[in-house]
Amino acid sequence: MNDRDPLKDAIAAFRRLPNVGARSATRIVYWLLRAPPEVLPSLRDALDALARDLTQCSQCGAPSTTDPCPLCSDPRRDGSVLCVVEHPQDVLAFERSGEFKGRYHILHGAISPLEGVGPQDLNLRSLLARLRDPGVTEVILATDADVEGDATALYLARLLGELPLRITRLAHGVAVGTEIEFADAVSLARALRNRQSV
Amino acid sequence: MNDRDPLKDAIAAFRRLPNVGARSATRIVYWLLRAPPEVLPSLRDALDALARDLTQCSQCGAPSTTDPCPLCSDPRRDGSVLCVVEHPQDVLAFERSGEFKGRYHILHGAISPLEGVGPQDLNLRSLLARLRDPGVTEVILATDADVEGDATALYLARLLGELPLRITRLAHGVAVGTEIEFADAVSLARALRNRQSV
Repeated sequence: MNDRDPLKDAIAAFRRLPNVGARSATRIVYWLLRAPPEVLPSLRDALDALARDLTQCSQCGAPSTTDPCPLCSDPRRDGSVLCVVEHPQDVLAFERSGEFKGRYHILHGAISPLEGVGPQDLNLRSLLARLRDPGVTEVILATDADVEGDATALYLARLLGELPLRITRLAHGVAVGTEIEFADAVSLARALRNRQSV
Repeated sequence: MNDRDPLKDAIAAFRRLPNVGARSATRIVYWLLRAPPEVLPSLRDALDALARDLTQCSQCGAPSTTDPCPLCSDPRRDGSVLCVVEHPQDVLAFERSGEFKGRYHILHGAISPLEGVGPQDLNLRSLLARLRDPGVTEVILATDADVEGDATALYLARLLGELPLRITRLAHGVAVGTEIEFADAVSLARALRNRQSV
């Protein structure tokens, strides 16, 4: 008999993934055993390709098959505005909005003393290098609207304050489509504080 | 630039898994990119082992690294009682209860006209072969307590009715630990119908 139990090993491997508990991992693994025959190899090949074909763009830090990534090498993007975000997924959200035509910079995290994440853990070295380019005139701090995101934006605002740049932060307020009755208190307070003349 | 997008491919591959939506799949793939370096290879190796090392026990139908599986080849198990279940996970549930010392038979599904699953799709051929052994004296129909499970049990009861066997079905009723106030109506009805003298 084999010493390793492939079922237990696979369940343990899936349990390490975010938001996958013991029950989901068990369900996934037993499902894979009865799934159409191409499912398991295609998942394995996709994992191989992730490890083999993806590199990190040396400019913005995005995962990409090319360096620089398609966004950083696209001449139609406005190189004068840099939108600084925490995660690669944030770039996708901005691109879905269709509102931003500049370039991005991905920090790969946010400052969080509780989780032991400091400025040295963020993708800052290449950000500072990019800002040496006099063509860059504005940095938008688009970190998350939470404690860590605010701390990171504050840190960056101070760090970059010396540079001849316009530094902006995303507007916070009531999300579009929200009924005031159900708006959360913090967003409502921010929306009031940042109210604008009409 | 590469034609394939390893990120999109991996997200699509994870989305095929049960209970993994677009949001979870995206989260998992980006998490894998920043996970400790051993996580991705160990998941891939676990998938390889699933495909390579697991076979199906020719007796009970359980996924196993050996044929027959450890349960079917364990001489301490009582070969006279066969517990017929829908899924391999059901065997784990019985084993956790510690109550059953016989052997199992896994149907790999239940009869469901709505999903196009008929008797021909169930692991019945080897069940009938096992029941030719005169040592088997009882078959416990331990299919799920739902419409499909009931239909399957009914079908099996008829199919096996000619054989010199005791055929039993799991008792249904109020789950242990349930407050009557919160018991679901169907279980309560079954518990009443199956009430026993004390």
